Amino acid sequence: MNIQVAKDRKINRNEDFIQKAETLKPSLKREVTKPIRIVRAVEDHDIIHGWKCIETEPAASLVDKEFGKGESFIVDFGKHQVGYLSMQIRPVGSPPDAPLHMRLTFGEMPVEVSVPFSTYDGWISSSWLQEETLHVDVLPGNISLPRRYSFRYLKVEVLDTSVKYKVAFGEITCETVTSADSSHGTELSHSDSELRQIDKISIKTLEDCMQDVFEDGPKRDRRLWLGDLRLQALANYETFKNNDLVKRCLYLFAGVPNDQGQVSANLFIAPTLVPDDTYLFDYSLFFTTTLYDYFEATNDLETLVDLWPLAYRQVELALERLDERGIVIDSDTWWSFIDWHEELNKQAPSQAILIYALKKTIKLAEVLNDTKKSFLERKLTGVINASIQHLWDEEQGFFISGENKQVSWASQVWMVLAQVLDHEENQKLMNRVFEKNPLIGMNTPYMYHHLVEALLLIENKEKAIEIMRTYWGGMIKDGADTFWELYNPIDKAYSPYGSYLINSYCHAWSCTPTYLIRKYEL
Amino acid sequence: MNIQVAKDRKINRNEDFIQKAETLKPSLKREVTKPIRIVRAVEDHDIIHGWKCIETEPAASLVDKEFGKGESFIVDFGKHQVGYLSMQIRPVGSPPDAPLHMRLTFGEMPVEVSVPFSTYDGWISSSWLQEETLHVDVLPGNISLPRRYSFRYLKVEVLDTSVKYKVAFGEITCETVTSADSSHGTELSHSDSELRQIDKISIKTLEDCMQDVFEDGPKRDRRLWLGDLRLQALANYETFKNNDLVKRCLYLFAGVPNDQGQVSANLFIAPTLVPDDTYLFDYSLFFTTTLYDYFEATNDLETLVDLWPLAYRQVELALERLDERGIVIDSDTWWSFIDWHEELNKQAPSQAILIYALKKTIKLAEVLNDTKKSFLERKLTGVINASIQHLWDEEQGFFISGENKQVSWASQVWMVLAQVLDHEENQKLMNRVFEKNPLIGMNTPYMYHHLVEALLLIENKEKAIEIMRTYWGGMIKDGADTFWELYNPIDKAYSPYGSYLINSYCHAWSCTPTYLIRKYEL
Repeated sequence: MNIQVAKDRKINRNEDFIQKAETLKPSLKREVTKPIRIVRAVEDHDIIHGWKCIETEPAASLVDKEFGKGESFIVDFGKHQVGYLSMQIRPVGSPPDAPLHMRLTFGEMPVEVSVPFSTYDGWISSSWLQEETLHVDVLPGNISLPRRYSFRYLKVEVLDTSVKYKVAFGEITCETVTSADSSHGTELSHSDSELRQIDKISIKTLEDCMQDVFEDGPKRDRRLWLGDLRLQALANYETFKNNDLVKRCLYLFAGVPNDQGQVSANLFIAPTLVPDDTYLFDYSLFFTTTLYDYFEATNDLETLVDLWPLAYRQVELALERLDERGIVIDSDTWWSFIDWHEELNKQAPSQAILIYALKKTIKLAEVLNDTKKSFLERKLTGVINASIQHLWDEEQGFFISGENKQVSWASQVWMVLAQVLDHEENQKLMNRVFEKNPLIGMNTPYMYHHLVEALLLIENKEKAIEIMRTYWGGMIKDGADTFWELYNPIDKAYSPYGSYLINSYCHAWSCTPTYLIRKYEL
Repeated sequence: MNIQVAKDRKINRNEDFIQKAETLKPSLKREVTKPIRIVRAVEDHDIIHGWKCIETEPAASLVDKEFGKGESFIVDFGKHQVGYLSMQIRPVGSPPDAPLHMRLTFGEMPVEVSVPFSTYDGWISSSWLQEETLHVDVLPGNISLPRRYSFRYLKVEVLDTSVKYKVAFGEITCETVTSADSSHGTELSHSDSELRQIDKISIKTLEDCMQDVFEDGPKRDRRLWLGDLRLQALANYETFKNNDLVKRCLYLFAGVPNDQGQVSANLFIAPTLVPDDTYLFDYSLFFTTTLYDYFEATNDLETLVDLWPLAYRQVELALERLDERGIVIDSDTWWSFIDWHEELNKQAPSQAILIYALKKTIKLAEVLNDTKKSFLERKLTGVINASIQHLWDEEQGFFISGENKQVSWASQVWMVLAQVLDHEENQKLMNRVFEKNPLIGMNTPYMYHHLVEALLLIENKEKAIEIMRTYWGGMIKDGADTFWELYNPIDKAYSPYGSYLINSYCHAWSCTPTYLIRKYEL
């Protein structure tokens, strides 16, 4: 695994923008929830990850149970939670003559409360695994954990009490938090119950990722990524309409570009606003397209005027990466995300994203009557022509990418979204993709979103819905309460990190079906 | 291991007494301390527990060091601490893109930061082992742990950061707490530096055990035991003179006797005052002798009048345990502490403690002009005669205990302290004990205290001092910063709990040399 580390980079802080973002900081809505059942984790090789949770008793039975050293239980909150856990604990037997030592394990999925986290050996930090061991000195007592967790299942293990007492658990609660204002939300009126369910789970996914900022996932990485923001914002315009949160996030990104003017791929908010030292070709361009989408949704000209110079700068920087032919330079050391896929070449899809962004930038220049418009239009023409000349393989009927002329789903999907070919050619291209099924496929709901949107663009609603049913509907059949970061229907154990234990099972970039269904009136 | 569990017992709460205790609640003195060196744990079979800590660098060097996944360090605070830990942590490298997961291990002794606690397999709760694992979500940041720890050494293990950053540690501090008012303390003026050092460490031990109440040990069990209180009070009268804390503890015990009027062996203070369901023959009698000592030190007649009925009741209850011969009934199920020793028979030393307590009770009755005095005197004569008739083995020249006529150090020591024989006979008895060295020896400083006091009573100062030098002086040579709960010079791995990892190394009943040295002007 490669990581991007920028040493000695300089950040140009724009305190006005940071201040504007600060004033838009949302207040969080809080709600208290409780587990609804006690469950048992059962191994089942026919189930995703090999584990399921089966109800043994209603949660109300818990209060009468006693747990001593080495004993444990799992409760199921019934749906996905993002919030703060509290529990009442009382001693049973003699007065507690030693602290209670306990371990709490939080799971979005059954496997997380079934397989010990000590088995995890992936490259991404094990510190994301949601587990706490703690001592309780004073009993009876209420404990409230200071960290926020993302979970449906909670496993409680009593590591030790003493020979003189056991413990029993009274009320266990989660104070959930979200900045989504569900008063704007409306249930989808649709005859198809599966689409209604997909829509509902999309919205729940978005809701749980809407916190102080749009987070990518409340379990991991719990922060503002541009690629996720772009899709969350689209889903938000169709549902919660918390447009100020999009605005806040745009200003946050605009507050801390580097000294080249490039916007970071993601931001850390606490203890102070800091941009990550990961810069991605595609994500920086999405700053511009997200601003475009925001203006489309809000007509907020003031924000557009504020952020336009930086939005334009992202396009300029991307154009600087073109070679003399007008093609994005590929190399072993550049960074463009596109999808989680070890073998995916990023050149052609990045080229397509540049075109996609250029088109939206031109529209913004138009709104602003900016003289850069004609420069952008010339560049667009050049880049499109170069793409057809150098990346379009007439014989195969596919766009190719990189030195090895790789044919991937991602390249075709993004070239369709960029509308490099005409409508009819795009239709043929998409049909050809499905027919030939290039080896380099897709691993994330993020990439599947673009596939579905490409199908909608070529007016193949039927196929778009079919994909949504098999992919997001497939997640539901596999037990999703919220949509996941990663899902590969033919390799359900897929993780780019080394273990599905650390995958995020409520992930922003997976929330777009509600946008797709509502925007395109599926 | 046996434990005492009293089911369905009733507590007679005396709210007036509890209220009096509450008004005497001390304020804690706080001081901020810092580690003085970075150390390395080194195995050494010539050292107690097989581990020592060797300085590698001064603590000031720590700030420049970076620690990644799997790396760790140990700091030495230079002396024993009881308090609350804080530390500054900053990320080094890229912005921290995952929480810091770390483990903190606190050790009073080097072995605690050298041998993994997971190896502990004793019967007393592992929850006493001072270890925390925690996640730090926001970096840089200061963390302050909510629990109080008792330690000199702190091991910090970085379990995980991420591939993009490491951590460095700024100021590490401990806010120490004690209710001891050291303004009353005076350094011992004595020509013998070893006794000066023993005195100093005694006082430090007492100081670290003086908290909201007199605790037995700040690491374990962190609570008010009558046997410890009695000795702490004696040491306190010679040093800190925090007599109100003794008074508070007496009222706490008096606030929650059971429905027979028996005082519990120990109390839990939080969240509410609860007596343990352990009742010990000897400890209940020590309520009475501790009140006697308190009155001797303070002349506080009001408290004596308040607590006298309960003090008298402890003696009554003890007398009820006498058989028709006037000997304390032995059985497999009764509870008297005397010493940590699996084979020690408790009958004869308990008989002696009853005599010891009767004598002090008679003196209190005298002060109060209580008519019970003559009854107590009759009883005393009877019990002494019975002891000589049934427990004194003329042939061996030892007191015997239990069905198997066990000869133990404890029986002889307590019979001397109870002054059952005359002065000359007591002298001979003590000489005989050292000469014959009965198989059933002593394991605790608690029992050694009584040995030394018995020697002082028979005016064998020389031997008393020799014992103090070899026993408490031995602990110092073995690395004691504060005196220990357990110390057997010929079995330094001794623990009644299954592992010396869980022994307490700052333990109240070990603090008495300062009392012995000062009271008896050694």
